[in-house]
Amino acid sequence: MKDNALKVIPGGVAAPRGFLAAGVSAGIKYKEKKDIALIFSEVPASAAGLFTTNRVKAAPVLVTALRVKNGMAQAILANSGSANACTGLQGLRDAAATADEAARLLKIPPEFVLVASTGVIGQPLPMERFLPGIAAAAAGLSKDGGPAAAEAILTTDTEPKEIAVRFSLGGREAAAGAIAKGAGMIHPNLATMLCFLTTDAAVSAKCLRDILRYAVDRSFNMVTIDGDTSTNDMVLALANGRAGNPPITEENEDYYLLREQITEICVHLAKAIARDGEGATKLLAVEVINAPTENDARLAARAIARSNLVKTAVFGQDANWGRILCAAGYSGAEFDPQRVDIFLNGIQVAGDGSALPFPEEAAARALAAGTVEILVDLKSGPHRATAWGCDLTYDYVRINAHYRT
Amino acid sequence: MKDNALKVIPGGVAAPRGFLAAGVSAGIKYKEKKDIALIFSEVPASAAGLFTTNRVKAAPVLVTALRVKNGMAQAILANSGSANACTGLQGLRDAAATADEAARLLKIPPEFVLVASTGVIGQPLPMERFLPGIAAAAAGLSKDGGPAAAEAILTTDTEPKEIAVRFSLGGREAAAGAIAKGAGMIHPNLATMLCFLTTDAAVSAKCLRDILRYAVDRSFNMVTIDGDTSTNDMVLALANGRAGNPPITEENEDYYLLREQITEICVHLAKAIARDGEGATKLLAVEVINAPTENDARLAARAIARSNLVKTAVFGQDANWGRILCAAGYSGAEFDPQRVDIFLNGIQVAGDGSALPFPEEAAARALAAGTVEILVDLKSGPHRATAWGCDLTYDYVRINAHYRT
Repeated sequence: MKDNALKVIPGGVAAPRGFLAAGVSAGIKYKEKKDIALIFSEVPASAAGLFTTNRVKAAPVLVTALRVKNGMAQAILANSGSANACTGLQGLRDAAATADEAARLLKIPPEFVLVASTGVIGQPLPMERFLPGIAAAAAGLSKDGGPAAAEAILTTDTEPKEIAVRFSLGGREAAAGAIAKGAGMIHPNLATMLCFLTTDAAVSAKCLRDILRYAVDRSFNMVTIDGDTSTNDMVLALANGRAGNPPITEENEDYYLLREQITEICVHLAKAIARDGEGATKLLAVEVINAPTENDARLAARAIARSNLVKTAVFGQDANWGRILCAAGYSGAEFDPQRVDIFLNGIQVAGDGSALPFPEEAAARALAAGTVEILVDLKSGPHRATAWGCDLTYDYVRINAHYRT
Repeated sequence: MKDNALKVIPGGVAAPRGFLAAGVSAGIKYKEKKDIALIFSEVPASAAGLFTTNRVKAAPVLVTALRVKNGMAQAILANSGSANACTGLQGLRDAAATADEAARLLKIPPEFVLVASTGVIGQPLPMERFLPGIAAAAAGLSKDGGPAAAEAILTTDTEPKEIAVRFSLGGREAAAGAIAKGAGMIHPNLATMLCFLTTDAAVSAKCLRDILRYAVDRSFNMVTIDGDTSTNDMVLALANGRAGNPPITEENEDYYLLREQITEICVHLAKAIARDGEGATKLLAVEVINAPTENDARLAARAIARSNLVKTAVFGQDANWGRILCAAGYSGAEFDPQRVDIFLNGIQVAGDGSALPFPEEAAARALAAGTVEILVDLKSGPHRATAWGCDLTYDYVRINAHYRT
């Protein structure tokens, strides 16, 4: 799948019919930064969510995971600056109270508000600043609010991540939009990663959930920044049916069409997250081909993208392919090391598991590119997978040595 | 177990009766650095070995794993500078040829020579320099050669790691010695980690292997530097029986006594490896107590010691305990997040999974110490485990961005 198969439109998460968005600054951690995002569907929408696999789950994760089971929701309220994780019962009460306040202002049932948080762990939400922020966000909801919402969920990200696309569905014009944040701690499965997706497609909650699982497995779950899995991650999708397409309730042609669009959106945002990893100077794309199973391909691709040694070598523009093969070796993937070919941005550096003479200078030049593509051909079957990551740099250490302070 | 339970003696790996050692410079990667180590037992010894779990195994690993199955050996030949990994059939031929040359010079059967390598992956051994180096090492074997052998196996380590101890065994005076190298890529199970252990105890190869497995599980397999598992790791033990104790052939009192000594030696060296992790400024000791099973304790301790986010926070002297709980949460360990207490060098920073008011300045001071002890009380059972690691620093990135060049 290529990005250029997407028909990109402006508007981000508020682009689909019937959606509004806002992003405001409530001073949760910093004075000036936007830190509360609100996404609102004018009508109740099918809702689906995927959540961190960490045993330690932040309060908003617990609250939203319960609510999304209803399969219906109408608003997403998210904040950056404070994760509301490891905050005990008070954290649960605070998360519910913020949802209640949004529901009151939006005149919808409290259970139709999904909440999400990202930021420092272990500190209570500053409710005295948070509640007025919700009022400001509700008052500011608009069709133009997508970019502001995209900004409001960022933490150490250096730029907002949003996209919107249009496509035909069941003879009607439909649209989907999404915003995401990433930066640190990204790792399968979902890690300080938030993504909120909207679409005006008509689709059942069950189908929406299946589509989301498929898309996330091939996008966000294949991104690794530092191997840590956060307490707060979630991907939420709302589908309000305003496109007027025949509702998708089973795996038909429209189902696959919608799944492809949503998967491409997620892949686009996953790559944006990897490229913007903390301190990153390069996007690392690891493609493992000809694996015996898809799982083997996924294991090997992720281990390579995750390896600190591969990541530092990419930062140093060092064609140290031994580390790539080594990471595949401990990944748990099945393959014969003696058959592996490795290519760095198109230059073959290893063949049949052994060194090949290659032009070191050309390889170093290839590694100087903003995107480094590592292609690993296992020659052991028909399956493939791609993982995305970034290099490991001095700035990663600087950013994370003093994050709280 | 405490180091001070050990009666330390000089001599390192050549301290036990009947062992000689040497370390020489053959110019394998650098002109001046010692890079060939030879350890020799004057009589055939019980032999045991443990090897990397990486699917990609270096040639010396393949050769030595086969030979050690005989349960008997007499020499260990190790080099630094070139890993002889990903070198195909030529690598296997070279590894065997170096062992043959050592056997010829030492007048022992070729299968009694165990070989090990560490260094750059994917380059053939420079045999024209290696073979004369073996001759120099064989000529230089002596009771004083332990420290030189310890130096010869180092790569990016900043200091040699060796120890020797004496103890009573079956009414006789016995001794054991060991050298190790670590630095980068250390991770369970065994990673660019070499350890060679000698003892004059009389013990069967089977008992020696069981003892080694026990000791390594509680020492080297609980060390993590960067989470990568190398192609070359091995731990070898030779026991030549010259102490004259009643041979240990079953799990009797002497067995446990020898196991305790060998375990303490391995823990001592494991901590030395962690403290000397690439770019490290601090030793990180993570103790998880009151876990439901030992495996849960091990999983949680290792995940915390491995987390890039914990490691950068320790470098930054930031008491960011949320990252500690988060790492335990994704470790796979069973526990109730709401019961967890966390202590940093004796200062409690979290109770029952939530923030506690604690003196930030005192915590920052505690984190400024050369050793940072993270104690995590899961309050969910009787089991415990300790893992060791180090902080993640600018120097780690610098060292690994340009290792080959």
